[in-house]
Amino acid sequence: MYVYEQTTPSPASLPGILHATWAGTEEGLSQLSLWRQSMACGGRTPPHHHDCDEVVLCVAGSGELHVNGEVHRFGANSTLVLPSGVPHTLVNVGTTPLETLGILASSPVNTYALSGEAMALPWRT
Amino acid sequence: MYVYEQTTPSPASLPGILHATWAGTEEGLSQLSLWRQSMACGGRTPPHHHDCDEVVLCVAGSGELHVNGEVHRFGANSTLVLPSGVPHTLVNVGTTPLETLGILASSPVNTYALSGEAMALPWRT
Repeated sequence: MYVYEQTTPSPASLPGILHATWAGTEEGLSQLSLWRQSMACGGRTPPHHHDCDEVVLCVAGSGELHVNGEVHRFGANSTLVLPSGVPHTLVNVGTTPLETLGILASSPVNTYALSGEAMALPWRT
Repeated sequence: MYVYEQTTPSPASLPGILHATWAGTEEGLSQLSLWRQSMACGGRTPPHHHDCDEVVLCVAGSGELHVNGEVHRFGANSTLVLPSGVPHTLVNVGTTPLETLGILASSPVNTYALSGEAMALPWRT
């Protein structure tokens, strides 16, 4: 298979997160994962990092990126650039779901808490 | 910098191609490049491959993906999955520009013709 329809995010077992994996290992990739996500109002990720580069495209909504001791507001049509190893947190500060496309330079994706402990994610990475 | 506005593709020196690099080496990445492109009606890429995984998201328009001796039609909201090393050609077969987001698992990106010869691209990769 080379062409896939883009699926709609559905409830993950993390509260307030809808998730769809658009591409990854199952599609024959090892160097890319695509995650389409929707975060409910008031939601936030835990602080975390990956051992690969990440780019997040904001499709809709209004968010904050907490990174490197700074807080950056962003909205639709923003590109968030997160080099490998940089801890970050995403927060939905808007009144609508925060719609994002997460692009990660690995499949599977390794995710780590600030403590360095590996975090298991409830979707295929 | 962690947050960037998404720029509008502008003419590249390849005829019929508008291009914007949304992320890559200049933004601090080595494992990801994002290319927002618009291909004019009737346009096509040469057959080529990369030495990294690639995903193309079709934003608008109607295209054909020629890969592995097959022809796949695609349109808006399709995801094209092109593992590293797989030769492919994109063709705009519609009556409007073919709007795509190319996601490549390297920065800079190496591109090769079917002969194996490296192809120089007229944008930052």
